[in-house]
Amino acid sequence: MVKIACLGIGLMGDPMARNLVAAGHDVTIWNRTRAKAKAICGATVADTPAAAVAGAEIIISMMSDGHATLAIQSESELRGTLQHGQIWIEMASIKPAEARAQADDLTSFGVAHLDAPVSGGTAGAIAATLAIMVGGDAGTFASAAPILSALGRPVHVGPSGTGQLAKLANQGIVGITIGAVAEAMLLLEKGGANPAAVRDALRGGFADSTVLQLHGARMTDDDLDARAKAAIQLKDMNNIMDEAHNLGLSLPMSADIQTRFKTLCCDMGLGGLDHAALYLELLARNPKD
Amino acid sequence: MVKIACLGIGLMGDPMARNLVAAGHDVTIWNRTRAKAKAICGATVADTPAAAVAGAEIIISMMSDGHATLAIQSESELRGTLQHGQIWIEMASIKPAEARAQADDLTSFGVAHLDAPVSGGTAGAIAATLAIMVGGDAGTFASAAPILSALGRPVHVGPSGTGQLAKLANQGIVGITIGAVAEAMLLLEKGGANPAAVRDALRGGFADSTVLQLHGARMTDDDLDARAKAAIQLKDMNNIMDEAHNLGLSLPMSADIQTRFKTLCCDMGLGGLDHAALYLELLARNPKD
Repeated sequence: MVKIACLGIGLMGDPMARNLVAAGHDVTIWNRTRAKAKAICGATVADTPAAAVAGAEIIISMMSDGHATLAIQSESELRGTLQHGQIWIEMASIKPAEARAQADDLTSFGVAHLDAPVSGGTAGAIAATLAIMVGGDAGTFASAAPILSALGRPVHVGPSGTGQLAKLANQGIVGITIGAVAEAMLLLEKGGANPAAVRDALRGGFADSTVLQLHGARMTDDDLDARAKAAIQLKDMNNIMDEAHNLGLSLPMSADIQTRFKTLCCDMGLGGLDHAALYLELLARNPKD
Repeated sequence: MVKIACLGIGLMGDPMARNLVAAGHDVTIWNRTRAKAKAICGATVADTPAAAVAGAEIIISMMSDGHATLAIQSESELRGTLQHGQIWIEMASIKPAEARAQADDLTSFGVAHLDAPVSGGTAGAIAATLAIMVGGDAGTFASAAPILSALGRPVHVGPSGTGQLAKLANQGIVGITIGAVAEAMLLLEKGGANPAAVRDALRGGFADSTVLQLHGARMTDDDLDARAKAAIQLKDMNNIMDEAHNLGLSLPMSADIQTRFKTLCCDMGLGGLDHAALYLELLARNPKD
């Protein structure tokens, strides 16, 4: 039984906190808009981040972005409660440089830091099957892994910031694969094949993926209500290209897909649709005859 | 028990013919270089394609390419043996237009035709777990499906030529996904993450695929001996772009990846390596500092 503070009780943070309670931990929750945080049976509600963090062994932040977490970390009241030996785990998807800045900031208080963004969505959070990509010190990871295992499958991928880098790599593969599947679906439709039958035929083969099955169906069924917004995919591609720039890397496909999501979101105004709506950008390049 | 002629007993055709024998069919095999065809217990060896085809209910061709099959179909001796009601199943990967030409040619003899290319490689052929993408008449598919089921999982995807189109879509997704994974692996390596750990962390998520796990490992382990040659991937990309041109389609990612496999195979001279060697083309764009 570990004393855990959970900061940010939103769509992801809520089921994660519930799973920590279910695992038998002593959980204190805090949310910026207190009314938005549903009551969680067995968890204590704190009025401030400082009150939640005080005395906690593990602090898990799952705020909207890196700025939100850093704002909390900067509060003097909270800084006064930080204690040597605490572990702060940032589970939101933020920039690798922001994660490293968080870690550096906390070091002076003797607080260890892990960046541990997740993949799997709210369904994965509820089922405690999240993929958890963890950057930071190996010893700190070893201490935190048993707690993270109540939320999904934690894997240590390298030093501070690399958890976020892994998440970016994940998002980049998803974005480009959506582009690949869009071209395949268009080729099949225009060539007179049944795309749904082809998706079925390809199941289990080298071309198969969740993106082929789910996003491919969203494209050819014109079912583009957002499960994950195109605007968020654009933000991810922007972060990937920022990181590539920082590292001096040329990533031609990531650059192309960034440009095309920008066209979709900014020029076509469709950033509120699902990221599978990149199909519409491809269709716009292929006017009907 | 159906009388089946198998034309082309190579790496794929050999295990396929064996599985048809094992399913209890009366199988006659023919191979251009007779010595290359290993004896298959329970199958009859024919001296000519015509002798194999004579009296067969089902003819399965698995030659090296569309030209090879069309050359056999054009032999006057073989044409003299064709009978109304026979079904010719082209299982090699050929161009959609070649498949339609085969079908048209056979129609005048009352011979039905299916184009049924496969995915899954020799391992899938041996295990009878091939993905079989079938184009052609629905009634003909219904007749042939029980036989094809001895080789894997047949799915009817549309009219004549669409089986080949589905195979092209498969190859295009694979080629582009290799490009996506290459950029992710490079980003992770240069950013200080452990790519093998990240591949493990992403298992089962939205970015996961056989290409991420297998080809990603080939890239970062520098294990680029050919399981599928880059030169064949280039041929596939050329066929996709030919088909896109015929259909008047703009497929920007397929076009880019075609250009890059051409650079890898023609300018860098590495077409004999695995298609995961596209990573080397990406590295060449990113000179070491």
